[in-house]
Amino acid sequence: MPTPPSVRLRELGLELPEPAAPAGSYAPAVVDGDHVWVSGQIVSHEGKARPSGKVDRDVDLAGAKAVAGQATLQGLAAIARVVGGIDRIRRIVRVGVYVASSEGFTRQHEVGNGATELLIELFGEDGRPSRASMGVYALPLNAPVEIDLLARIG
Amino acid sequence: MPTPPSVRLRELGLELPEPAAPAGSYAPAVVDGDHVWVSGQIVSHEGKARPSGKVDRDVDLAGAKAVAGQATLQGLAAIARVVGGIDRIRRIVRVGVYVASSEGFTRQHEVGNGATELLIELFGEDGRPSRASMGVYALPLNAPVEIDLLARIG
Amino acid sequence: MPTPPSVRLRELGLELPEPAAPAGSYAPAVVDGDHVWVSGQIVSHEGKARPSGKVDRDVDLAGAKAVAGQATLQGLAAIARVVGGIDRIRRIVRVGVYVASSEGFTRQHEVGNGATELLIELFGEDGRPSRASMGVYALPLNAPVEIDLLARIG
Repeated sequence: MPTPPSVRLRELGLELPEPAAPAGSYAPAVVDGDHVWVSGQIVSHEGKARPSGKVDRDVDLAGAKAVAGQATLQGLAAIARVVGGIDRIRRIVRVGVYVASSEGFTRQHEVGNGATELLIELFGEDGRPSRASMGVYALPLNAPVEIDLLARIG
Repeated sequence: MPTPPSVRLRELGLELPEPAAPAGSYAPAVVDGDHVWVSGQIVSHEGKARPSGKVDRDVDLAGAKAVAGQATLQGLAAIARVVGGIDRIRRIVRVGVYVASSEGFTRQHEVGNGATELLIELFGEDGRPSRASMGVYALPLNAPVEIDLLARIG
Repeated sequence: MPTPPSVRLRELGLELPEPAAPAGSYAPAVVDGDHVWVSGQIVSHEGKARPSGKVDRDVDLAGAKAVAGQATLQGLAAIARVVGGIDRIRRIVRVGVYVASSEGFTRQHEVGNGATELLIELFGEDGRPSRASMGVYALPLNAPVEIDLLARIG
């Protein structure tokens, strides 16, 4: 029997952050039948993105990958809040990776790995999602990376 | 019993616009089981975006919020056309907010509120969706804002 | 009885390419109940996008439409791999069109037609999806166009 994701999380020395308060009139996560849709997650503190700026120019690739991972943890926390814990997640179906990119930066997929490598560590192959990564021009609060998620629960 | 959204719409002094003709080989809205997927909506007139340009440089925040609201109404009209009215909507599951952003603009989430505040006024908490807002580089027809929607019907 | 899509493909003189290897820790396609979610597809060869660059400046509209079509075929190949062939597709529900855009380019919807015209040729009206097209700032590997798909199978 596989290790429950909540146990795996502790084994990795990680914990779920507080779910981020929504930056407007939306819900952090919406339960829709046996799916949970998670809003775009950015990493911020007291209303400011941390770190902030464009990837490559202001935040390097390693830093952007770390932000992608932290945003993913926030997304999992949002799921946990609405369904009672991450052990209810059966499958990570979809991950969107939005990278505020400076001119010439074309490694958005490597930033995305910061999100999806973590998901695979936590959920095994059920955490290997479909994914689309893209370089946007700017993100709310000048965040370098935004992540959204679709999960199936059971 | 809550006020039907079609009644609430009239109370707000609003009406559904004509569904926008698709700008290419796609459907304005697709029914998929108990969901309706709405294509990206931009506000245009006779093939031109109205207003047009990038948010902050060409269209101010208040104007962009208004466009987001109008695009949302168009999206609801597209749903109404395929399922017989907005009172069939049970839940707004997801909203995507794509903002053509000029350099330095990082308030895409406030533009998104122009879409989701309207949805909450119409549908109450069932209209509070998950949401992702991002700053893109350009949109079809030089539109400042594009909105897409996923709704559950019943 | 309509022509099966696999036959229609041959009639059009086309064939499915090899599914693209994922550019990171994700799955090319994920089966989720009666849906298949396809990851963002770019057209590359030996780790380089082909062609590469921004649409309008480096790749013209006709070239970008062709890339959109080829990326769509790759996406169909990814579906075929996980469900045993494209004849299992009942409906193309959603297509996302992400166009790396140079300054002033606002015909992203025409690029998108390169994806969705092909789908309609293959699947008839069941191939006419909802769609959102947008101009992003950059894409992985400097690709000019990325396409993702959601299909219903049966």
